[in-house]
Amino acid sequence: MNDRAELRKDLRGLIDRICADYPDAYWREVDEARRYPEEFVDALTGTGCLGALVPEEYGGLGLGLGDASVLLEGINANGGNAGPVHAQLYTMGSVLRHGSEEQKRRYLPGIASGELRLQAFGVTEPTAGTDTTSIRTTARRTDDGYVVNGQKVFISRVQHSDLMLLLARTTPREEVTRKSEGLSLFLLDLREVEGVELRPLRTMVNHETNEVFLSDVRIPADALIGEEGKGFRYVLDGMNAERILIASECIGDGRWFVERASRYASEREVFGRPIGKNQGVQFPIARAHVHVEAADLMRWKAADLFDAGQPCGAEANMAKMLAADASWEAADVALQTHGGYGFTAEYDIERKFRETRLYQVAPISTNLILSYVGEHVLGMPRSF
Amino acid sequence: MNDRAELRKDLRGLIDRICADYPDAYWREVDEARRYPEEFVDALTGTGCLGALVPEEYGGLGLGLGDASVLLEGINANGGNAGPVHAQLYTMGSVLRHGSEEQKRRYLPGIASGELRLQAFGVTEPTAGTDTTSIRTTARRTDDGYVVNGQKVFISRVQHSDLMLLLARTTPREEVTRKSEGLSLFLLDLREVEGVELRPLRTMVNHETNEVFLSDVRIPADALIGEEGKGFRYVLDGMNAERILIASECIGDGRWFVERASRYASEREVFGRPIGKNQGVQFPIARAHVHVEAADLMRWKAADLFDAGQPCGAEANMAKMLAADASWEAADVALQTHGGYGFTAEYDIERKFRETRLYQVAPISTNLILSYVGEHVLGMPRSF
Amino acid sequence: MNDRAELRKDLRGLIDRICADYPDAYWREVDEARRYPEEFVDALTGTGCLGALVPEEYGGLGLGLGDASVLLEGINANGGNAGPVHAQLYTMGSVLRHGSEEQKRRYLPGIASGELRLQAFGVTEPTAGTDTTSIRTTARRTDDGYVVNGQKVFISRVQHSDLMLLLARTTPREEVTRKSEGLSLFLLDLREVEGVELRPLRTMVNHETNEVFLSDVRIPADALIGEEGKGFRYVLDGMNAERILIASECIGDGRWFVERASRYASEREVFGRPIGKNQGVQFPIARAHVHVEAADLMRWKAADLFDAGQPCGAEANMAKMLAADASWEAADVALQTHGGYGFTAEYDIERKFRETRLYQVAPISTNLILSYVGEHVLGMPRSF
Amino acid sequence: MNDRAELRKDLRGLIDRICADYPDAYWREVDEARRYPEEFVDALTGTGCLGALVPEEYGGLGLGLGDASVLLEGINANGGNAGPVHAQLYTMGSVLRHGSEEQKRRYLPGIASGELRLQAFGVTEPTAGTDTTSIRTTARRTDDGYVVNGQKVFISRVQHSDLMLLLARTTPREEVTRKSEGLSLFLLDLREVEGVELRPLRTMVNHETNEVFLSDVRIPADALIGEEGKGFRYVLDGMNAERILIASECIGDGRWFVERASRYASEREVFGRPIGKNQGVQFPIARAHVHVEAADLMRWKAADLFDAGQPCGAEANMAKMLAADASWEAADVALQTHGGYGFTAEYDIERKFRETRLYQVAPISTNLILSYVGEHVLGMPRSF
Repeated sequence: MNDRAELRKDLRGLIDRICADYPDAYWREVDEARRYPEEFVDALTGTGCLGALVPEEYGGLGLGLGDASVLLEGINANGGNAGPVHAQLYTMGSVLRHGSEEQKRRYLPGIASGELRLQAFGVTEPTAGTDTTSIRTTARRTDDGYVVNGQKVFISRVQHSDLMLLLARTTPREEVTRKSEGLSLFLLDLREVEGVELRPLRTMVNHETNEVFLSDVRIPADALIGEEGKGFRYVLDGMNAERILIASECIGDGRWFVERASRYASEREVFGRPIGKNQGVQFPIARAHVHVEAADLMRWKAADLFDAGQPCGAEANMAKMLAADASWEAADVALQTHGGYGFTAEYDIERKFRETRLYQVAPISTNLILSYVGEHVLGMPRSF
Repeated sequence: MNDRAELRKDLRGLIDRICADYPDAYWREVDEARRYPEEFVDALTGTGCLGALVPEEYGGLGLGLGDASVLLEGINANGGNAGPVHAQLYTMGSVLRHGSEEQKRRYLPGIASGELRLQAFGVTEPTAGTDTTSIRTTARRTDDGYVVNGQKVFISRVQHSDLMLLLARTTPREEVTRKSEGLSLFLLDLREVEGVELRPLRTMVNHETNEVFLSDVRIPADALIGEEGKGFRYVLDGMNAERILIASECIGDGRWFVERASRYASEREVFGRPIGKNQGVQFPIARAHVHVEAADLMRWKAADLFDAGQPCGAEANMAKMLAADASWEAADVALQTHGGYGFTAEYDIERKFRETRLYQVAPISTNLILSYVGEHVLGMPRSF
Repeated sequence: MNDRAELRKDLRGLIDRICADYPDAYWREVDEARRYPEEFVDALTGTGCLGALVPEEYGGLGLGLGDASVLLEGINANGGNAGPVHAQLYTMGSVLRHGSEEQKRRYLPGIASGELRLQAFGVTEPTAGTDTTSIRTTARRTDDGYVVNGQKVFISRVQHSDLMLLLARTTPREEVTRKSEGLSLFLLDLREVEGVELRPLRTMVNHETNEVFLSDVRIPADALIGEEGKGFRYVLDGMNAERILIASECIGDGRWFVERASRYASEREVFGRPIGKNQGVQFPIARAHVHVEAADLMRWKAADLFDAGQPCGAEANMAKMLAADASWEAADVALQTHGGYGFTAEYDIERKFRETRLYQVAPISTNLILSYVGEHVLGMPRSF
Repeated sequence: MNDRAELRKDLRGLIDRICADYPDAYWREVDEARRYPEEFVDALTGTGCLGALVPEEYGGLGLGLGDASVLLEGINANGGNAGPVHAQLYTMGSVLRHGSEEQKRRYLPGIASGELRLQAFGVTEPTAGTDTTSIRTTARRTDDGYVVNGQKVFISRVQHSDLMLLLARTTPREEVTRKSEGLSLFLLDLREVEGVELRPLRTMVNHETNEVFLSDVRIPADALIGEEGKGFRYVLDGMNAERILIASECIGDGRWFVERASRYASEREVFGRPIGKNQGVQFPIARAHVHVEAADLMRWKAADLFDAGQPCGAEANMAKMLAADASWEAADVALQTHGGYGFTAEYDIERKFRETRLYQVAPISTNLILSYVGEHVLGMPRSF
């Protein structure tokens, strides 16, 4: 085993040990109470893991994306939900890649240590949907900064976040040549700004997601990340990383479902024999396993390319699609295998079934991935 | 339009009018509070619909199964959940078919009027699963009745039921030739008996389901329905009716999902055009519609055979499988079509998505239907 | 059993008796030799069945579409291929509905008796595909008739046809308001015209299909069916009937596959027991059966509406899609069930597997049906 | 690019150059004539490729399995059929692994050079199916060798093979403890033995497969490979290699289908625009591509493990299943994309569609792979 493999094994071991203190019952209670997994996030914070992707010079572990993906996979494979960890790990990427040296020094160490929470990423708007360049939130230049007005939706964990990245239009659409220009990225310190109102959305999964209303929110000039007008490009820049991390979480889910389903099928006896002796029960579990394993290979291909600084758009998208499909297949199979018990909270299947379904639409839907592959990989004409 | 069609149109009209007073927001609140839809059931009670299947001589409407299925379909097609109505409509069938004249006179009029709630059917046990003849709950003969001991699971709405049908073993398995003998069916008056304890199960759907613990529950001799030892046959007798009714509810769900999805796809604009212009969005909705319509035809074939007193085992099973598959397909498509909004409670998709998934496993799983078709319709060897 | 049911039972009995003389080996040889099933068509001709849809006054049986569909289903359910019979039965519909009294008297009796073969329908062109109104074949008016020039493709059985229906443009596209105008339908007597050249296409199925090249083909004025310029409407008029008949053939195929697969699964022993004891073998066969039965119900709904003169576009399209999907599912399952033997000609599975696959694209593709349902049934926007 | 990658690129380049001389039209003609691709095999023979897996000391190239898989994939990706090459490459493995030094010296150089054809592997029997240990062909010990009697089925290319590997029972089943004992492997020189009769089987694919009848076939004692009684183990030993190679051929097929389908979808215009603009056309092609790519990663994982001498049973089986599923999905999509043209021989889709379907059942069916995964990877009980 080489050094990298050794490191990843250690990271996974670390996660497994922490997760052992936060068993199914913990996550079940968090889900039922629809609350933030405060204790679990605190426990992780102590390990430095939340700064996995922050370079060492800014107080982080300076790990690669593949390494970080091991952490997220591990949380989900242990029955937890890596959502908040994912956000803290990954959202700071825009600051790291495009922020000024000063911004990095101000924020990254706190993010790495977990003292400073940056888990909210304000991009999506109700009228724009996946057509990001159509967002209508504006940031108007003033003497000493910007005034932001607009509305965001599906912004998770704002309540538990000190900071929020925000995409807003700084140059009106009619004044730019291409829709993708004129958007800018800002880092809002939620503890300081005024005019941000939240409306929590009750959803099928416990992601504490919100509508965010921004009314004359004044932010300082140095909240701007990188250059004005290049925000969309900055957001795009981080998408491959996000897809790979989400793929890893799906892999974790998929493995958890397969493990639970095959164990239950081996132990549960009906008609005088384990239900897993029925091919109608066993084969769908086996098939889901094969698909999870295949998705995992694509996730690693994508992660390795990413970490080597090579183009990985096709692989990141394929990994996300394969992994989300496989985890959903495994979830459905696990639910079916457990019969009525699958629907009870105490078996935890229904919780993770609801959670993993989200990855068919977020952060990118299967249709948009197919469109990406059809058009950009296979060269077919644009379909919309 | 013939009389029957006219009647059914009227029944559906009635349901539509009542449901208009109990819109999405009502059911959403009921689901969030995990409570019994008391007001809705009360409103229906006033109409006499709950006695649809009770003969007129016992105070009911004396309708056919097909007619009754129109009611249940209508509730689900309007966005509601026919669960409790289904139970009240159907569970009394065992009393009607196998009860004594005296039992019928004592219970059916109250059930028909809705004053007496019979919505709990105590068959399933944790160790038996779908292998009903392996249940371990016993009813021991005493001088003046029976003493029941055992445990049931997935018994819904006991809290809102005055009566409960209960299957228990009256002759030990080792004393009967065939496993299916020696089981008896009882009608318990929950208001009178002692020793019944409930443990509510938190589940993915709001069916108020419970574990039921029976400890030395003394019941009078006249609680026995029909002959001692024939209970399993009595339970089997009602299965086709139940499958046809469940199929109707799935059809209602399926139509609701297709209607919501196609409307949203026509109205929601992203990238400057309705998302329904995308075949990747439109075609899956269209396909789900076709499958719902096909399932509906099988449901009617089964219901017509049933009402004509002809064998309908194959058709009832096929109708259940086709309808449950179609409603689940439609649910998944509707969720996907709505993107992130599908996951929010306020769009109601996620609620009904969770609810309709249940019909893949209850009251009979897809695997058991395939096994029935394979063995009893196509003549292949028994597979388990 | 009412009269209609009795009649249909008789029709099926007739087909079964004739098919008994043309067993698998016959069709296998016809397929291997890639020839026309001359003997089988002759045998049917004697029965009058080929004139099932021709009114009695023109020498036919004057049956309904549902009745005729029984014949076609029966041929395929017996392992044969109803292709040529389908064509002779159905193609004359345009003459019947839109031809002059004189044309009907001249052609229909011979078609009904089978003396006159009208099995070729010349619509499709290489550059138009499913966009029929874009065809480029022209029929130019002359003093005494028309001169036709152009090219058709996928025109089956021209070699065994005395007559061919032909769609051609009589008014240039730029002179009509709507693309669908200016097309006319002609009945060519292939025994008399000159300038028709064929190029047989070798295909996966033995349908004797051809490219047809038309060079200065002179046809008399009375070859025109109905009014000039209305040909496209006439072609559309017959589509529902065709889809219902094709659905019936798929149902016949589906039943044949299910019957063969379940029989083989019950008899073939591996590992000391029938392979059908394996749910991995049995369940897919059972599932295919259920889908065939569901499709059959839609076929009957469509046929009944058609015979009652009511709109049946949605039902005819859904029946075609469901039946083609079900027969293909059954074909695939039957092939898989037979293992290596399924691939050998002598088991006949591979022949019908190839044949039934065609109905996913002909006479209309699944995508176009989904588009029809999405747009015209569910009201979503046109997607292409 | 490292040395291995360089080598594989060269191998693929070599195959591409040879295949350029044997375009679609060549394979189409071979398929239509149902003949052996003599010229293509001869051309390959000259390159030494047929000896890819034979060690250099026996005149081969001494390459790894991964390297060899590049050759096979390349043939199929160019539109050809690697069947005969696969057989020549791989069948000698039993001799190499278990033959005596003398046998290796006698046969391997000729096999490597292509002068000696070993393309027939006689294992499968009609009554045994996939239950190999139940074969009934016997090899009875005589003074100077063995006398073989029995029957084999699905033995391909015997007509073009000088040698055939044969599995036969040397100790009666009732005299061995385990069914898997008492079977022995022989290398028959078909040019010398008598009593071997062939019955060619006409099949959906052009694999020149046969029933083989063995009547008192006398073979010398030195035809025995390895030890008597251990033949089944020797056969098992080669299975992972075979599955990996078949997976590679499926990958080649899958890439060919995706390439053809996406090109046709981009070029073919209907309704005034390329059909690939329709998501109903484009997305299934894109999805098939993703699945081919995922399968390819598993094939490489399996091949790398194999070449490193590590256990690879799970990976080889998963690679075979994923690749066969993906190539079949791609085949079906390509056929559908081409509409009617897909069915014509001249587009070649139908030929490869028929060919690639075989890999769902050979050399191992999907069900047996699922069973392997369910039982041996996931630890569920044996299901048959």
